[in-house]
Amino acid sequence: MNTEKSSTILLSNDDGVFSEGIKALINAMRPLGNIFVVAPDGGRSGMGCSVTSQIPVRAQLIQSEPNLTVYTCTGTPVDCIKLALGNLMPQKPDLIVAGINHGSNESINVHYSGTMGIAIEGALNKIPSIGFSLCNYSPEADFSQAAQYANIISRKILKMNFPAGICLNVNIPDIQHIKGIKICRQSNGVWSEEFEQRTDPHGFAYYWLTGTMQYPEKEYIDTDKYALANGYVSIVPCKIDVTAHEQIETFSRLFL
Amino acid sequence: MNTEKSSTILLSNDDGVFSEGIKALINAMRPLGNIFVVAPDGGRSGMGCSVTSQIPVRAQLIQSEPNLTVYTCTGTPVDCIKLALGNLMPQKPDLIVAGINHGSNESINVHYSGTMGIAIEGALNKIPSIGFSLCNYSPEADFSQAAQYANIISRKILKMNFPAGICLNVNIPDIQHIKGIKICRQSNGVWSEEFEQRTDPHGFAYYWLTGTMQYPEKEYIDTDKYALANGYVSIVPCKIDVTAHEQIETFSRLFL
Repeated sequence: MNTEKSSTILLSNDDGVFSEGIKALINAMRPLGNIFVVAPDGGRSGMGCSVTSQIPVRAQLIQSEPNLTVYTCTGTPVDCIKLALGNLMPQKPDLIVAGINHGSNESINVHYSGTMGIAIEGALNKIPSIGFSLCNYSPEADFSQAAQYANIISRKILKMNFPAGICLNVNIPDIQHIKGIKICRQSNGVWSEEFEQRTDPHGFAYYWLTGTMQYPEKEYIDTDKYALANGYVSIVPCKIDVTAHEQIETFSRLFL
Repeated sequence: MNTEKSSTILLSNDDGVFSEGIKALINAMRPLGNIFVVAPDGGRSGMGCSVTSQIPVRAQLIQSEPNLTVYTCTGTPVDCIKLALGNLMPQKPDLIVAGINHGSNESINVHYSGTMGIAIEGALNKIPSIGFSLCNYSPEADFSQAAQYANIISRKILKMNFPAGICLNVNIPDIQHIKGIKICRQSNGVWSEEFEQRTDPHGFAYYWLTGTMQYPEKEYIDTDKYALANGYVSIVPCKIDVTAHEQIETFSRLFL
């Protein structure tokens, strides 16, 4: 028996079920097993781990063929995973993969990323989970090389004894010759000039989210930022326990 | 000069600018200095660190008096903080406080909580930040005791040299006699049975987010869950660097 072939893999993303990135990821995963997709019905960028609590959500089966089931969902990326695991899938998946995201999720973007929201939700459910992002925001981005890396990385993860309480944030540079894969820490980025003020035809202000990312660190050779800038795929293992354990003593003294 | 009186404090929440929790928090903070509020125009529960990228957001000044400025905003809790820091406030605040949330944000809810999204956004901007939540989901919840703790904790935080890269997740039990404050780690909760399926009048399925939290840990005396269950206010210091540093070697070997 080919154990790879028997894997069940859940896919989602935050760019929507009809995006090029998820099509590339589906193609990359199909040789690995039975593919189950639950993805938003449109773009849900920057939604992090958000869930829909004030209105109900719906899901619709849009494709069903041997080893490939595709649902579209009106909710957030994390809603898609919760609905897949609790309501739609006949069995628990062996792996959850998200993406391939149109644009980088390096550094602190792990907090805002719907792609990484999916991976965090997978980790919270004790399932090996990976978010894949291509460092290219263009609608014409070519996902073929990123898809190859998604396949290589997912194969390895399916074979390993994946540690509990973590997920992987994988970013793939958009260059011709990738040098390899580096395991990194999250770099210290800072967003600046984020909301651009404009004036509507009636004279009132409104604001568009935009901004640029700054990297204040000088010593950053072990970061995702450095790996990507130097031609490597970056993989950051991310914890779901966000406790600053090293600060417990400081605050315990403060509140004695 | 009274240094406390000269503090500038930014407030926001995820229950909306007209909720009882933020009114209690404004009252608790007013003795500490100059208060600047930018809060959503309605409920934004479960929005985590999400940002609004596909439509513009607006803000409206609804109250302006000595030492108290209040804006309402059409965006997410994190949008409110970004807009406050980048566009609306004349100066950087000394402290950011979120809440008081209607309901607990203990354990893994840090990932879904808009209240904690605010605190994480503050930490990303290198500002001491605290999310306050009352463990009572009732619309009639009494925030007065929680507000007293918010005042006590914020006073201490304003006086200390707050560590970089962290924020605080404070949960306050809804009991008459609180025993004190405990600094804790995040407990390992797991949500189960999250989406409840219903059928609409036309025969189609839809799903409401609900569910219950399970706590699988046996040894949990050092967790927020334990502190709250035993009559203490819990404070979890939370990191914005989510790298699982202890896993870097394992994955480096895997991808050699």
